[in-house]
Amino acid sequence: MLLSLRSVKERTTIRISELARTTEVPVATIKYYIREGLLPPGVATGPNQASYSDLHVHRLRLVRVLREIGDLSIDAIRGVVRAVEDPSLTRHEVLGVAHRAVSPVDPGEHLPELAEVDELLRQLGWEVSPTAPDRHELAQALASLRALGRQVDATTFLPHAHAVDELAAHEIATTPADASATEAVERVIVGTVVYGKALTALRRLAHEHHSARRHLPEPS
Amino acid sequence: MLLSLRSVKERTTIRISELARTTEVPVATIKYYIREGLLPPGVATGPNQASYSDLHVHRLRLVRVLREIGDLSIDAIRGVVRAVEDPSLTRHEVLGVAHRAVSPVDPGEHLPELAEVDELLRQLGWEVSPTAPDRHELAQALASLRALGRQVDATTFLPHAHAVDELAAHEIATTPADASATEAVERVIVGTVVYGKALTALRRLAHEHHSARRHLPEPS
Repeated sequence: MLLSLRSVKERTTIRISELARTTEVPVATIKYYIREGLLPPGVATGPNQASYSDLHVHRLRLVRVLREIGDLSIDAIRGVVRAVEDPSLTRHEVLGVAHRAVSPVDPGEHLPELAEVDELLRQLGWEVSPTAPDRHELAQALASLRALGRQVDATTFLPHAHAVDELAAHEIATTPADASATEAVERVIVGTVVYGKALTALRRLAHEHHSARRHLPEPS
Repeated sequence: MLLSLRSVKERTTIRISELARTTEVPVATIKYYIREGLLPPGVATGPNQASYSDLHVHRLRLVRVLREIGDLSIDAIRGVVRAVEDPSLTRHEVLGVAHRAVSPVDPGEHLPELAEVDELLRQLGWEVSPTAPDRHELAQALASLRALGRQVDATTFLPHAHAVDELAAHEIATTPADASATEAVERVIVGTVVYGKALTALRRLAHEHHSARRHLPEPS
């Protein structure tokens, strides 16, 4: 899961062997990505030669992030790459495609709790797609709590919503406004996955800390 | 993953068939749990009969939560159940066992970033075990960011730590102080897993909302 991309350097045009060395992606894998449409082919410079550019270096970096951090399938990566290349999409739409790629899928079967979740989102004033699949995750969580006999409604998640609201605003605000689409997509994947894992780990550590404060005698 | 435990009623002693009906756990599964040491045997009332009590109802409920919500193995469930039964353990220690059961395992190989994570936890003033496995999750996240060329130190996680600090305090404070060990353990599992999934889903929805606010024109 560790990438090593520190050595990416700006070049004008390079051969495939150099592209492989720079990006630490084997030549055979680069050729496979080209066949699968994840990477545009190089510009032919001879019967068996082509030259590659910074575009390829940056795109390969994005593909590695999508594979190794995002854990995406080749088909899912192709979808994100096409969105990055599509000039008719707005920045928000491109980021939406990246975001959706690392979100759960719509389960198809909709729980009755979904209406309550949508009402919660309306109360929060959050502008989210009416088909966002994470709504189903929340509906499922609410249904699980009720099946356990907890008499809760969707407002049980309000403290959690407030905790992530400010955090998400901070996370979005720290993306440079002039980032390229490739960079912005990479930030969405890394932010969702890597910082998401950190958030989950920190919450468990914070539970341990607050549980200790509650249950252990004060040190004298 | 949906449990249906609403119908648990308080009884004095019941037969295994009634225990199965009440808890919706098949008789064969109850017998399997007894053989595996997850549930104490009933009190023999005849050559082929035994009676069961509220203890069994509550314990079976806990075992189902550990299996269906916590997704724990039989061995892991046995560890948690033994902690619940052990009168020499403090409440904090019992909850620590439950907590550890739904945390990642120590990877064995320790990243150099671990020292920075421990320093961050010290700065936060968080009272956590010096062997808490979530420290490695944070070290791994920091290493991943650096491998991507991000020039960050462990303070990159400070906004995330602050977001969950207050939330975790709220979550711990809402556990009734007079809860039994069984109930308290169940709350740890449900809190960590179900509310953890809700938190992750809400963070992604909050990203979508704040990304929309940043990239879309204001509605007129």
